[in-house]
Amino acid sequence: MKIHGNPMSTCTRKVLATLAEKQAKFDFVNVDFNVGAHKKPEHLAYQPFGQVPALEDGDFKLYESRAMIRYIDEVVPGQSLTPKDTKTRALMEQWISVETSNFTPHAMTYIGQYMFAPMHGKQPDLAKIEEAKPKLEKCLDILDKQLAKGPHFLGDQFTLADVCFMPYFEYAMTTPAKDLINARPNVAAWWKRVSERASWKTATAK
Amino acid sequence: MKIHGNPMSTCTRKVLATLAEKQAKFDFVNVDFNVGAHKKPEHLAYQPFGQVPALEDGDFKLYESRAMIRYIDEVVPGQSLTPKDTKTRALMEQWISVETSNFTPHAMTYIGQYMFAPMHGKQPDLAKIEEAKPKLEKCLDILDKQLAKGPHFLGDQFTLADVCFMPYFEYAMTTPAKDLINARPNVAAWWKRVSERASWKTATAK
Repeated sequence: MKIHGNPMSTCTRKVLATLAEKQAKFDFVNVDFNVGAHKKPEHLAYQPFGQVPALEDGDFKLYESRAMIRYIDEVVPGQSLTPKDTKTRALMEQWISVETSNFTPHAMTYIGQYMFAPMHGKQPDLAKIEEAKPKLEKCLDILDKQLAKGPHFLGDQFTLADVCFMPYFEYAMTTPAKDLINARPNVAAWWKRVSERASWKTATAK
Repeated sequence: MKIHGNPMSTCTRKVLATLAEKQAKFDFVNVDFNVGAHKKPEHLAYQPFGQVPALEDGDFKLYESRAMIRYIDEVVPGQSLTPKDTKTRALMEQWISVETSNFTPHAMTYIGQYMFAPMHGKQPDLAKIEEAKPKLEKCLDILDKQLAKGPHFLGDQFTLADVCFMPYFEYAMTTPAKDLINARPNVAAWWKRVSERASWKTATAK
């Protein structure tokens, strides 16, 4: 299997974490944003939107990180990251959707304004932060209630739902969103727990 | 099974279309936005974000439309809307992610500015449309290439990927996005084909 990605990309890190959990061997093609590699024809053949990551498995091509991690979990041997029980699996899908629609857009506002804007010599746009803050707080309250049942989103099993949230937490914790996260004890304890996994250290090592 | 939703909501319509495809019997609880029913404790017990839809199946509660349709397809007897083959199923997940991340945000800009703004006595914000237009066009080009292989996103089988795109097409076709859609012959033919399904007429009848 070959992964086309960038080690700093949140979506690439979901895939790297999944592969590390499975202790899978794979080849990595570094898509260098600095030279615009993601917009060149060689990469667009794998990901027509010019984003990362993308996957090759023999002749099979796949993109979109949340599709790739489901595929990897299914075809790569090792510990499963998907609940066997239908209802628990449905709830995993629910939390992945919450991550996509209710958490990540607001976390990315913090990440964009406090990590990326300064990289481009800009000040954070505090109006955008003020708009995102109550939405992120509401979502974190709901996550905190779920994670009180812990230790993971779906209880004892570490699943793809945990993987999906992790890259955004990693970066959000370097911004003032850290205080909102640490104010929710179950969320903070979950982040400490999952970020100490060997797979996460591997996924974020580059 | 009981669905809490609103017949005009795009996310509710994904669920109604899935149930109609399966010819399933279910109860419908109309969550009336006009009286703020989605923000009242009775509904928040099913959907803590105050959104629709949500599902009850005995004691089991589930929300997020893209999780609900997977669950419904798995537990309700009838024609499956999920490919059996691992790679084809992975591609279904890819197209559902494309819908969520690369299509719907831009389609919703058109829908928000041309359908919802006038309902509130406002003019469309053309700056927002100008920003969304090239992104929607790029996505439609990629969909058109995929749908050239038709008749559906994953070939012969009508799947959850088709269902996920449909509610946004229904509304986008009432806006100037219609011209962008009709300029892509495979997309336009797909929309005509799927919107004529009996299940879609049922899902949008209320």
